[in-house]
Amino acid sequence: MNIVKTISEVRNEVKNWRKQGLSVGLVPTMGYLHEGHKSLIDRACKENDKVVVSVFVNPTQFGPGEDLATYPRDIQRDAALCEDVGAALIFNPEPEEMYFDDFHTYVTMESLSDELCGKTRPIHFRGVCTVVSKLFHIVAPDRAYFGQKDAQQLAIIKRMVRDLNFDIEIVGCPIVREADGLAKSSRNTYLNPEERKAALVLSKAVGLGQELIQKGERNADVIVEKMKQLIEEEPLAKIDYVQAVDAISIQPVAEIKGTVLVAMAVYIGKTRLIDNFIYEA
Amino acid sequence: MNIVKTISEVRNEVKNWRKQGLSVGLVPTMGYLHEGHKSLIDRACKENDKVVVSVFVNPTQFGPGEDLATYPRDIQRDAALCEDVGAALIFNPEPEEMYFDDFHTYVTMESLSDELCGKTRPIHFRGVCTVVSKLFHIVAPDRAYFGQKDAQQLAIIKRMVRDLNFDIEIVGCPIVREADGLAKSSRNTYLNPEERKAALVLSKAVGLGQELIQKGERNADVIVEKMKQLIEEEPLAKIDYVQAVDAISIQPVAEIKGTVLVAMAVYIGKTRLIDNFIYEA
Repeated sequence: MNIVKTISEVRNEVKNWRKQGLSVGLVPTMGYLHEGHKSLIDRACKENDKVVVSVFVNPTQFGPGEDLATYPRDIQRDAALCEDVGAALIFNPEPEEMYFDDFHTYVTMESLSDELCGKTRPIHFRGVCTVVSKLFHIVAPDRAYFGQKDAQQLAIIKRMVRDLNFDIEIVGCPIVREADGLAKSSRNTYLNPEERKAALVLSKAVGLGQELIQKGERNADVIVEKMKQLIEEEPLAKIDYVQAVDAISIQPVAEIKGTVLVAMAVYIGKTRLIDNFIYEA
Repeated sequence: MNIVKTISEVRNEVKNWRKQGLSVGLVPTMGYLHEGHKSLIDRACKENDKVVVSVFVNPTQFGPGEDLATYPRDIQRDAALCEDVGAALIFNPEPEEMYFDDFHTYVTMESLSDELCGKTRPIHFRGVCTVVSKLFHIVAPDRAYFGQKDAQQLAIIKRMVRDLNFDIEIVGCPIVREADGLAKSSRNTYLNPEERKAALVLSKAVGLGQELIQKGERNADVIVEKMKQLIEEEPLAKIDYVQAVDAISIQPVAEIKGTVLVAMAVYIGKTRLIDNFIYEA
């Protein structure tokens, strides 16, 4: 697997491909790849001649006290998975390749960053928008692939691309789950066996929310309250948020209509996990 | 002259050029073009196969009470000048082509926006960075041309390009002056004959600052104070700022060493004019 560490190496590779008239897909990741990432890379390989997977634990999207230092890393394992699926290149820069000491430019998003994860992670989406902009400029892909598990991130990236006129198609891909329902996440590795069991409360809450809507409930507060009650029954779980928002604007909704995102973040022990579903009326 | 109003038209033109292997230069302007702009377009035409001139009075870089509504506009005159110099295309969008009602994404720059014009125009450089990012994404040029008259803007754009990894070369071009020394500016048209004479105080202050340094003065405060005194002798002039800063970081300096930018903004009547010089030790 071709793993490059510098921006100029990526650019050279991509420019060579462009000269041959090849299309390029980008899958931005923080590494420690799992089946969720695999589904993104898979789709990117189907839709593009060449696929770049970036593996970069981006410091600017972690707040103080978050898990930047402990975030799991295993580039050899990641390389094997990328090789397997058919990616052409891994871009795995060091932080100092991406950020000069006197780095001062940020891409910020108002409104869409205010709710959900933005409430407890105030600088998170500024870091995401900034690093994704940088990766877009470095790789200059035709298409970029993001998971629906990070639903707010996906909505924000789509809005950023529209607002700043990036000439890139953003492709969102469905959540991939373990056999028992837990959404795949690199952070699942933090869980001890007891917590792993407790973590099922997220996907169960997703199931409950979907079921309530299917049965005709349209009051967002009622749905969110019942989901919260279910989660609170689990002693190891501590709710960060459960919220129903418009899937495009990420603004709270009172009623389930249009396209609604019901999303949650829940601490299982010290591990913060997220899950969600989208309902299209 | 080919004047297009939509993003898709610009993209189509540029893509056609790219297929022919042609290089592309961009000159972003707010229109009402003068000799300063002409020098930028001229240089762009020398260094690129095709040149796009954008003419867009960008609302997001104007604060409340600034001259967005009254900023001079004359697209036919601009088109004649562009034709003359050899530009291939004018991009002249309406504000609604550039900004959706629910536009929420901004490119922001810390530190370099704090001093000089950033002090009295707090949202100005956010607007500049945002619209220039958009134009870069729309036109995707090899090179983009900016005047040294807007010295802080040029420093900020260079930093933005470095920080966000735009694959674009930024070319700064010298200030173009009237015969009597006044820096060319679209805003000079606001001046009545009396103010036009008074406006010479800016270029005179530039001359004084340069002379003091040439004679060996290295204390930035002394230089700035003497420049201010000269400006204050003019009854129609009201100083916004006169400041000496590092030309790269745009942070105040006490001593003239390295590369220093000495910049000023001065109201002549109601018209705010800027001028500056750079001294390289």
